[in-house]
Amino acid sequence: MPKILILGAGRSSSSLIDYVLTQVEKFGWDVTVGDFSPQAAQERIGKRKATAIAFDIQQTEASTATIASADVVISLIPAHLHPLVAKICLVAGKHLLTASYVSAEMKSFHEEAKNKGLLFLNECGLDPGIDHMSAMQVIDGIKSEGGVLTSFESFTGGLIAPETDPENPWRYKFTWNPRNVVMAGQSTAKYLQDGEYKFIPYQQLFQRITPVTVPGFGEYEGYANRDSLSYLKTYQLQGIKTMLRGTLRNKGYCSAWNILVQLGCCDDSYQMERLATMTHRQFMNSFLDLRGSSAEAKIEMMFGLPAKSEEMRRLIWSDLFSDEPVGLEKGTPAQVLEHILNKKWKLKTGDKDFIVMWHRFRFLKQGTEKEIQAYLTAKGDNEIHTAMAKTVGLPLGIAAKLLVQGRIKQRGVVIPVSSEIYEPVLNELKDFGIRLFHG
Amino acid sequence: MPKILILGAGRSSSSLIDYVLTQVEKFGWDVTVGDFSPQAAQERIGKRKATAIAFDIQQTEASTATIASADVVISLIPAHLHPLVAKICLVAGKHLLTASYVSAEMKSFHEEAKNKGLLFLNECGLDPGIDHMSAMQVIDGIKSEGGVLTSFESFTGGLIAPETDPENPWRYKFTWNPRNVVMAGQSTAKYLQDGEYKFIPYQQLFQRITPVTVPGFGEYEGYANRDSLSYLKTYQLQGIKTMLRGTLRNKGYCSAWNILVQLGCCDDSYQMERLATMTHRQFMNSFLDLRGSSAEAKIEMMFGLPAKSEEMRRLIWSDLFSDEPVGLEKGTPAQVLEHILNKKWKLKTGDKDFIVMWHRFRFLKQGTEKEIQAYLTAKGDNEIHTAMAKTVGLPLGIAAKLLVQGRIKQRGVVIPVSSEIYEPVLNELKDFGIRLFHG
Repeated sequence: MPKILILGAGRSSSSLIDYVLTQVEKFGWDVTVGDFSPQAAQERIGKRKATAIAFDIQQTEASTATIASADVVISLIPAHLHPLVAKICLVAGKHLLTASYVSAEMKSFHEEAKNKGLLFLNECGLDPGIDHMSAMQVIDGIKSEGGVLTSFESFTGGLIAPETDPENPWRYKFTWNPRNVVMAGQSTAKYLQDGEYKFIPYQQLFQRITPVTVPGFGEYEGYANRDSLSYLKTYQLQGIKTMLRGTLRNKGYCSAWNILVQLGCCDDSYQMERLATMTHRQFMNSFLDLRGSSAEAKIEMMFGLPAKSEEMRRLIWSDLFSDEPVGLEKGTPAQVLEHILNKKWKLKTGDKDFIVMWHRFRFLKQGTEKEIQAYLTAKGDNEIHTAMAKTVGLPLGIAAKLLVQGRIKQRGVVIPVSSEIYEPVLNELKDFGIRLFHG
Repeated sequence: MPKILILGAGRSSSSLIDYVLTQVEKFGWDVTVGDFSPQAAQERIGKRKATAIAFDIQQTEASTATIASADVVISLIPAHLHPLVAKICLVAGKHLLTASYVSAEMKSFHEEAKNKGLLFLNECGLDPGIDHMSAMQVIDGIKSEGGVLTSFESFTGGLIAPETDPENPWRYKFTWNPRNVVMAGQSTAKYLQDGEYKFIPYQQLFQRITPVTVPGFGEYEGYANRDSLSYLKTYQLQGIKTMLRGTLRNKGYCSAWNILVQLGCCDDSYQMERLATMTHRQFMNSFLDLRGSSAEAKIEMMFGLPAKSEEMRRLIWSDLFSDEPVGLEKGTPAQVLEHILNKKWKLKTGDKDFIVMWHRFRFLKQGTEKEIQAYLTAKGDNEIHTAMAKTVGLPLGIAAKLLVQGRIKQRGVVIPVSSEIYEPVLNELKDFGIRLFHG
């Protein structure tokens, strides 16, 4: 009886746990869900057949015992803790599946994991995850028909469904870790364009966007992710001229967010003064040389905005100029901004999120330039069973099943770019309504 | 016979060593100059009476012996090494004088130094140094006449003399550590304006400038230094409404430099790709989404510049669009930019530098608002005896003399804000033509 250990019962775990517990009924798996809070783990399990336990990776002895008693570990705990989990898996001889980016430390475990016959499958969620799998399926298809890729661009965003907050001009709420949203882009983005290495610093990132139209869904815009270059080798695209991966937002988001970036509202490097008595408006004033004008007028002047601009509409809707107290005793600008935005950007009961992924492939085939655009969308059921939870959790759950069934032969530190993984995962995702359309 | 140890015989040491060796003749001091290169130390000494030695603070045993044999240590080695020097001085019971900012670590030595009867005088150069002294003299004067300070702004810049490089549109060359110039402002600036705390992130710094006119000298502009708030207490200006310290440049510098900041040319966080074969123009192209246009046209478009703008004139003069190879094997954008700029911005034989310092004090006196503007300028004799070397070195040399003569009573970690230091130092600086004028 295969023993599956799921680590983390937070925001993103609902669909993974549901999927795995469905397999329990079919295949008789033994499932344990560990979380910092065993109550949270039990809540996710409900009355179904699985064991909820307390799990804290920092408690090395207990963590080691828990992992030693499993066959496969699926981890949704914060990414920076995954090397710790991996180290225990290496010693205990257990497989590990995560949706996190492969860090340098995780990468360093490759040889040892491989030699021990272990699979450390990472980047197997949505982004990274389904983006790799759906792109590689198209890329391998193009190559198999003799095409040569010249350009690959890929953007994914976790947005909100059209029926959620119809008056919200950002068309965005926090469907994932809010801090990551506020801190997004603070490292220089690196990509390849027309054969040249290109670098976008934070101060340019939200001004240098790629317009994206998804047929039947609308107008979006993408900003570049930190590192598009590291996938040249993994995707086997050496020699390609353009390679850009990024994050998708609804049209208009970036030029409004850019104002917050330019003013310094996303700065995480110092504690603010006099925060305990600060209002939202005073927070904004801290970044402005007002000299008698209002924050609104000053921002319009600085950014050359017309009256009643879309940018100001977004900032005003987020109550950034209200006289409401911030309500924090201490914090950095980034923490204060997150706290203010969370008042409007937190998912409410009934809110549905919405995932949009878009790829554009350009290639030469028998001397002709060709282009394929492809997209994938997913809508959440509600504020718990979000599209984010589904698209992150299902690939992990399906991959775990394939592994238990002996259908994944690769070993070592792996991401899902080979057909033995992406074909069956993408195939099963269709049963959940998640599939790539070619536009 | 007092024994003076001078550490560092680099760019900034000429005037300090000259001053101290003049005192040797008068007072019979025993002077040793230590540098990583004993040849450099000997060159500075020439045929005068002093000992040149090799000194490397990282060689703890030798450093300790050298410092133990001195009475007063004057250090011009890089600021981050001063805590190491201070630790040895503490153990050996020696006084220490530097022109560096007081770091948190340096500050932590205060009680021990005081208890041992040692003076650790820091920030006793130009900026910080003469700025503190000249400002405090005016501030104490205003207070002694019953005035209450409401605003203090102070800017200092190391520029070039009008006769140097008359065609150089920046009116700037590297008269100090070039890396510091390229990296300037990358931490958020904090200051006080009209009673409110204000924060300026890097991306705003060179757009948010204070215009400064110095009578008889010209039009300048100042950008804010990292932390103006830390001097509220030191200057005894608690309750003041506006407090801003910054760096002065010639008019037009900041809007041109801002382009390099915005593009990401000053980024020090990653190594560039393909640098060995890169030209200046290709360096600039790395930061631009060209799509067929030239770098010049793209920059004009991005920044809304008219044809033949002053900004482009500065960038072009610095050869940033030339097809000359960069000439580095590896480096970050900041290192590459420094290397390119150094080709035009390095002082040549005959070049003279020029220091401008400007203070503005606003205060209430008997219910009336009053203002004092004051300025100080200094010109270098040549590319060795620069104004920078004079204004950094002379205050240190004079302070050392005062200390040896028993005229400085303070002990512990101190900056020159009390009259027992600033009065005699400012007085003697007048003999060298360095004095504050009230506009």
